[in-house]
Amino acid sequence: MLKGRHLIDIMDFSIEELDEIFKLANEIISKEKDFSKVCDGKLLATLFYEPSTRTRLSFESAMIRLGGKVVGFSEPNSSSVSKGESIADTIRVIGCYADIIAMRHPKEGAPKIASMYSTVPVINAGDGGHQHPTQTLTDLLTIKSIKGTLSNLKIGCCGDLKFGRTVHSLINAMSRYENNSFTLISPEELKVPDYVKKELNKKGVNYSETKNLEDAIGSLDILYMTRVQKERFFNEEDYIRLKDIYILSKDKMSKAGKDMIVLHPLPRVNEIPYEIDSDPRACYFKQVKYGMYVRMALMLKLLGIR
Amino acid sequence: MLKGRHLIDIMDFSIEELDEIFKLANEIISKEKDFSKVCDGKLLATLFYEPSTRTRLSFESAMIRLGGKVVGFSEPNSSSVSKGESIADTIRVIGCYADIIAMRHPKEGAPKIASMYSTVPVINAGDGGHQHPTQTLTDLLTIKSIKGTLSNLKIGCCGDLKFGRTVHSLINAMSRYENNSFTLISPEELKVPDYVKKELNKKGVNYSETKNLEDAIGSLDILYMTRVQKERFFNEEDYIRLKDIYILSKDKMSKAGKDMIVLHPLPRVNEIPYEIDSDPRACYFKQVKYGMYVRMALMLKLLGIR
Amino acid sequence: MLKGRHLIDIMDFSIEELDEIFKLANEIISKEKDFSKVCDGKLLATLFYEPSTRTRLSFESAMIRLGGKVVGFSEPNSSSVSKGESIADTIRVIGCYADIIAMRHPKEGAPKIASMYSTVPVINAGDGGHQHPTQTLTDLLTIKSIKGTLSNLKIGCCGDLKFGRTVHSLINAMSRYENNSFTLISPEELKVPDYVKKELNKKGVNYSETKNLEDAIGSLDILYMTRVQKERFFNEEDYIRLKDIYILSKDKMSKAGKDMIVLHPLPRVNEIPYEIDSDPRACYFKQVKYGMYVRMALMLKLLGIR
Repeated sequence: MLKGRHLIDIMDFSIEELDEIFKLANEIISKEKDFSKVCDGKLLATLFYEPSTRTRLSFESAMIRLGGKVVGFSEPNSSSVSKGESIADTIRVIGCYADIIAMRHPKEGAPKIASMYSTVPVINAGDGGHQHPTQTLTDLLTIKSIKGTLSNLKIGCCGDLKFGRTVHSLINAMSRYENNSFTLISPEELKVPDYVKKELNKKGVNYSETKNLEDAIGSLDILYMTRVQKERFFNEEDYIRLKDIYILSKDKMSKAGKDMIVLHPLPRVNEIPYEIDSDPRACYFKQVKYGMYVRMALMLKLLGIR
Repeated sequence: MLKGRHLIDIMDFSIEELDEIFKLANEIISKEKDFSKVCDGKLLATLFYEPSTRTRLSFESAMIRLGGKVVGFSEPNSSSVSKGESIADTIRVIGCYADIIAMRHPKEGAPKIASMYSTVPVINAGDGGHQHPTQTLTDLLTIKSIKGTLSNLKIGCCGDLKFGRTVHSLINAMSRYENNSFTLISPEELKVPDYVKKELNKKGVNYSETKNLEDAIGSLDILYMTRVQKERFFNEEDYIRLKDIYILSKDKMSKAGKDMIVLHPLPRVNEIPYEIDSDPRACYFKQVKYGMYVRMALMLKLLGIR
Repeated sequence: MLKGRHLIDIMDFSIEELDEIFKLANEIISKEKDFSKVCDGKLLATLFYEPSTRTRLSFESAMIRLGGKVVGFSEPNSSSVSKGESIADTIRVIGCYADIIAMRHPKEGAPKIASMYSTVPVINAGDGGHQHPTQTLTDLLTIKSIKGTLSNLKIGCCGDLKFGRTVHSLINAMSRYENNSFTLISPEELKVPDYVKKELNKKGVNYSETKNLEDAIGSLDILYMTRVQKERFFNEEDYIRLKDIYILSKDKMSKAGKDMIVLHPLPRVNEIPYEIDSDPRACYFKQVKYGMYVRMALMLKLLGIR
């Protein structure tokens, strides 16, 4: 039962519970009209202590497309934080108004604290470099819907594997399914942290590391690209040297299998050129749409409506 | 008749009119579902020239829970003010779009001016240190609902009684009802202003002043706590010396009667420790909920729907 | 057919298409209730990369009054722009959530680029000093509704005719109709640019230029006033010298015909004193209301609902 639960970390939910959400998401996709009023009278509060238009609009559109409504804020300076109020108090107040809360916060653990005091379900919409579980839900639903399975897949992760929380979370989540293997493609400076590899070793999951996207791409079922974020670097020189190294050119795509799919959590900068967008294997805009549907399913489950 | 009226100052409404609002609020509380569509097609504009998440979300949730919708802004820099437009013009333009307006403004009297030019009802959602009548409506509904009456009560007001507009407004409003008395608990530096006491004297209302919360608490029906706001002090030293003086400890609570209720307009800082929250006499989160219901009732009355 | 089209420049639409929109707007005005649910399930995204409360609220109210809903942002710093995302990508992502988009952007041409990548209709809600086609739609509907025609009119444009994009756009649009003539009233420094006059000459449209509002006013059917925007001047001195020169006093109004109407895109500063507001010829607040109705009609057409 997911009714009344919070989603702070993707590992909060069992594989069976995730599957329930994906099934519902696919049901919504196949007969969206049937769901257009199911959240009538329900109110989502979006508490964004740092701006994230994409994630906020995905949540808000999801609730609205279910017939519910939205209140909230998109920036910290419109909040009561400046008056010294604690997250515990804010969440108890918002819980008097809203039926469910999506919280984005620059500090790791803030949504966890919120969930401890909240009388209504809290969804972590990203907390610093820590967790972003609805992005992982999005990735999983996209893979499951397009590839038909979450098992027996060769997954390449490319770009900034050091700071990219979405990648860590995806690796973590996909290792729970049978017989997946990972190819970790990154420059030396942006390799996956040791704790992620330890986890993979402990679970006996197959993985390899490489610097070469071109060599690796031919064997992949999924290529998960990530943005090299300027804000992660200590100096501009390092950023400029590394940011273009893993650009997914047409030439590289010609070496990939015809069923390989390219995913990206977006926003991209220039790691995927525009000319790739029309390639049928480019699935990152489909992924955006799946992101909205999976949030619809998640909220319906946490509210206990389905 | 409240239809088409504005609410700028709590004294704009007679005791009978307030009572009408409280009766409707209690009706909404007892059968909320019956009210979930009554504002279908109605549009609230929230014009917040300074941020106040709590108040804004209370108004917006109230309208949405009645089946209406909301437009607006939560900060001055998203407004047309920067283009030099007057409040008179803004309000006439917004009146072309919306059916009712809630305005928060840092300048005293701004909502009054707005109401003079508006073609739709204007509600003062706080104007500087001046008035915040829907907070007072909230306080009165909370007291009436929990204590069953607005008369014959011993009310303690504790904390910053000098700058706290909500306290002045509450004292003013409660003096209109029969046989209430006040215990004004504050440090020397933050005593209630003379004009408030003059008013009490003129009306022949009983009150006493003290510095000692511990001594006073035993005789109270209501303890209204307030935050000592950092921004009210001229220097940080004074703030640090005074801010913790009236902390409501468990020890102090043990000296209070079992029917005394603790109210607070929130946000609190540390004048009420978290351990008090589970005390059944702590009613400040209930107060938040009453705040939403009283705004629902108020808007229904001003719109002439009930 | 306007279904699925974008509106970037008022010249994108033929006279017949504009007429379709105006007819629908008048139908909405005459039986608004019939339209209160026609956009049920539709979602407008308002992407405001610079604040413009008036225009944003007009769009949002329009969609809400049709039974639709709204998501969006009102300022650039709440957007993903700071992460280096292109408009092309943002628009494709938003197109996954919303059914129609209104975009305001400080850079000329940004909405045009957006429309090239968008899968849903894009409306230009103002791009820098360039185009603001829904303001022109507003002006045309106001004139057509009050004067009963868009032809055979003597139109005076007064104030800043150099930088005022709404005036250029109005002149351009009104020259498409038969037998209109223009009186261009401005100080030397703020005269209409040459390319506008060349266009008028090419089309064989009658126009004259003058510095004197008082002399010109008597012969006009329409006086279109504009604000002298401080931000257009290179130095404060020029601004102060010129800003009050074309104030529409009661005295000047006494020289105008009894059927002349005064329009203004608002916000005004002091070019129209408050005392003129009660003159029945002052139509700028009616114009605001027409602005909401014409946006309702426009969105219904682009969505293919009517």
